[in-house]
Amino acid sequence: MDMNSLQEKLHAIDRECRHLERTIAILQWDQETYLPEAGVEERAEQLALLGSLAHERFASAETGRLLDGLGSSSDNPGGDEKLPPLERDFLKVMRRDYDREKKLPNEFVAEAARAEGLSTAAWSQARRNNDFASFLPHLCTMSELSRRRSVYWGYADNVYDGLLSIYEPGMDSDAVAAVFAPLRERLSILLKKISGAAQPDCSFLGKKYKTETQALFSEELMKRLGFNFDRGRIDISAHPFTTTLGSDDVRITTRYFPDNVLSGIFSTIHESGHAFYDMAMPPELRGTRLADGASMGIHESQSRLWENVIGRSHSFWEKFFPVLAGFFPEQLRFVTADNFYRAANCARPSLIRVDADEVSYSLHIILRFELERGLFSGTVKPEDLPKLWRAKMKEIIGVEPETDTKGVLQDIHWSMGSFGYFPSYALGNLYGLQFFSKLRNDIPDIDSRIAAGNFAPIHKWLFENIHKWGRRLDPPDLLKKVTGQSLSVEPFLEYIEKKYSGVYGI
Amino acid sequence: MDMNSLQEKLHAIDRECRHLERTIAILQWDQETYLPEAGVEERAEQLALLGSLAHERFASAETGRLLDGLGSSSDNPGGDEKLPPLERDFLKVMRRDYDREKKLPNEFVAEAARAEGLSTAAWSQARRNNDFASFLPHLCTMSELSRRRSVYWGYADNVYDGLLSIYEPGMDSDAVAAVFAPLRERLSILLKKISGAAQPDCSFLGKKYKTETQALFSEELMKRLGFNFDRGRIDISAHPFTTTLGSDDVRITTRYFPDNVLSGIFSTIHESGHAFYDMAMPPELRGTRLADGASMGIHESQSRLWENVIGRSHSFWEKFFPVLAGFFPEQLRFVTADNFYRAANCARPSLIRVDADEVSYSLHIILRFELERGLFSGTVKPEDLPKLWRAKMKEIIGVEPETDTKGVLQDIHWSMGSFGYFPSYALGNLYGLQFFSKLRNDIPDIDSRIAAGNFAPIHKWLFENIHKWGRRLDPPDLLKKVTGQSLSVEPFLEYIEKKYSGVYGI
Repeated sequence: MDMNSLQEKLHAIDRECRHLERTIAILQWDQETYLPEAGVEERAEQLALLGSLAHERFASAETGRLLDGLGSSSDNPGGDEKLPPLERDFLKVMRRDYDREKKLPNEFVAEAARAEGLSTAAWSQARRNNDFASFLPHLCTMSELSRRRSVYWGYADNVYDGLLSIYEPGMDSDAVAAVFAPLRERLSILLKKISGAAQPDCSFLGKKYKTETQALFSEELMKRLGFNFDRGRIDISAHPFTTTLGSDDVRITTRYFPDNVLSGIFSTIHESGHAFYDMAMPPELRGTRLADGASMGIHESQSRLWENVIGRSHSFWEKFFPVLAGFFPEQLRFVTADNFYRAANCARPSLIRVDADEVSYSLHIILRFELERGLFSGTVKPEDLPKLWRAKMKEIIGVEPETDTKGVLQDIHWSMGSFGYFPSYALGNLYGLQFFSKLRNDIPDIDSRIAAGNFAPIHKWLFENIHKWGRRLDPPDLLKKVTGQSLSVEPFLEYIEKKYSGVYGI
Repeated sequence: MDMNSLQEKLHAIDRECRHLERTIAILQWDQETYLPEAGVEERAEQLALLGSLAHERFASAETGRLLDGLGSSSDNPGGDEKLPPLERDFLKVMRRDYDREKKLPNEFVAEAARAEGLSTAAWSQARRNNDFASFLPHLCTMSELSRRRSVYWGYADNVYDGLLSIYEPGMDSDAVAAVFAPLRERLSILLKKISGAAQPDCSFLGKKYKTETQALFSEELMKRLGFNFDRGRIDISAHPFTTTLGSDDVRITTRYFPDNVLSGIFSTIHESGHAFYDMAMPPELRGTRLADGASMGIHESQSRLWENVIGRSHSFWEKFFPVLAGFFPEQLRFVTADNFYRAANCARPSLIRVDADEVSYSLHIILRFELERGLFSGTVKPEDLPKLWRAKMKEIIGVEPETDTKGVLQDIHWSMGSFGYFPSYALGNLYGLQFFSKLRNDIPDIDSRIAAGNFAPIHKWLFENIHKWGRRLDPPDLLKKVTGQSLSVEPFLEYIEKKYSGVYGI
């Protein structure tokens, strides 16, 4: 067969697998948003079947033969050097995914998909009822499945590293620990300093904000940030997430609390940041597996950059506070943009990761990282997690949850078997500030653009520097290409220390 | 292989195919309710892939070998006589579906699925913009695909009969024409008589009814009718429909107009009637292809029985008018249950099928039947449909639509390639009244049960006589078993003539 028809056939397999993966994403999105309660069990069966069909198709001997035929091997994943660079990047990623997938037996994949469907449903109920015991068997199953997956991939001696590598290619737990150490130290110092300072007036946040009105504001905000509702939507779910159901179908979810207006606003901006990445994939990558984020950490760099660096900036609220006040004139009658900015950046030890301020956020991640690492090294038992969670919260952040709902049950990730995902969030903070320093260099008047609600230059810069690459570059290469640097905690720590000196006058 | 393992393997194939079909149904449900506009094209690709996977799996040589191995053939579909009756019914239905499916080439199935996705989206836009021309190419494609499908099935000489047979096993166009003739004649006479009589006061229907409040009433009504929201839900779509996404996941859709409160109410009851059938499948049929309606006509007998015979009865509004008036106290201030009953049964020539009264409804169907029949016999060209529609509306019902949106574009069916489906609605009216006569015989005080809002006896009767059979019995056998009769127009015509004599005093 000539090279052209080999490429064509390989791309056809890739396309089919992506259709199947997106079908799975549709089933999962529906489960998190609209599925009637009793439909969960059959949904798990449907997911199991689709998961095993996608796996079977992708990990087939045919995929292997086509990759081989194009000169791609584990040692030379990009294949024949005469192929154009885009095609070589495609082969590189295809080979990496293939080498990983083919090590998983079909039955394992179906079993894991079925278990995941049931586990997320059980988590959702357990969280509602503050009932860790009912979730524990699922947690055990999911961590055992993750362990087996990592062992299949060849990580029998360092299971957690295998799991980390799914989300952050090339990262291992020592490398993560190495950046988390200075992060933990300097953030703890900053948090302590802040605790000693006078807190800004946040009393207006304690008023009731109608969730229907919050939803209207969220949609307005998304439009002004540049979210294209012809190519996406927003819905409600227990845990905010972003999912791509098609190149032109990127959906986010959020949740609204009448007694916490900040939660809905910042979830919306956060998930929109993810969506902007997925919506911006360039035409030449469309329909291929290159049209995806470089890694979870890079994806989080986008969402956290929009949520925090942009969305919690003074410039941002100069523009958007009047808009918000238009939706909530009673609640915000005597409040100014500056008051709101300070309240949105109020830092204090708190229980819920997704609602945490920028100072303590990474500490929430470090807690999870330490527990996960222990879980897979054997020093932590699943049944001890609630107790250990409380103890570590006390130790690292200084508060203790009264319920598991506000503790170990707050996040969906473990119920999905996504162990090793959490570190991406903190890495995202680091990447994000490294990117943003460069962006500020390239667009020196960025603050006034934000204050004018003009986000086009940001979208353009992100596209040209990050989004257009899709999965073509691995995180370290992308970081190098954009910033000339390798991973560093400095830009993030400098940013946060400077910002909080300002907010608290310390 | 022994009989047991043959059965087990055959059931496994059936289960997989049902998971795939339901996944397809989820993708379609999402397309009709929540899919962003630009996502349509990729959704069509996803549907095409899933459709061809389901087809490949079901129409495989393996399915044939297993059926053969169990003694099932086209002449003896039920297979080995030593098998239990339930299993023989399963084999009978499996064999019929298999004989039909295996005649369709894989590429055809994928092509048809892809075309359907694009066509329904184009229809939806054309309907919104009153733009038949933009939909015409899709209409041509869909009718050509239907023709090819029927030819594959061996109906080259009577294409339309092949299409009818999908929805109503054993029915052909002559049999349909034979019952439609007396229906057309006597309904036309009745409609003429009514037109000469004084119309009831319907002025209060012209007021504004907030759609959000209509939605709240619909949910309340569904609960009181016996809809279990743990196993289903209601959403909004351009065209109301019911779909089963899992044994415990049956969803209906409806739509609300502020200037037509009856439309939303009766769509809701109609679709709930479908849902009750699908929700009532007995445990022994669960997860097999027997857990489905006996035919589209029988399905429509359920929806139209709930919508009309129950939902438009005097007893029903004795109970529910006060409930409705609680939701709309201003609009219904000087209205009584009796006023409302008469207004809900106001009969007059009108344009929209789904909103038509019981007298003219079947005439709307007869119009579509005549056009469809002409389309496949070659006397009607797709491009002439808008013109012919207007002429036939004038001739049969006595009114003419000013726009195609209110004419030939009003229904989704043709855009889905569901030619031959429409007659089921009118057959459903006939079946429904044959069933209800028997039900009234068995439960003589049925009217007072309805007036008390007590629907449990109706659910029980429908389950024991109809629902519990699923697809085990074909429509003629089911009808015989329940009523002792074969298909007849008399019970329906007697019912309608008596009811309307009362409403109009004629």
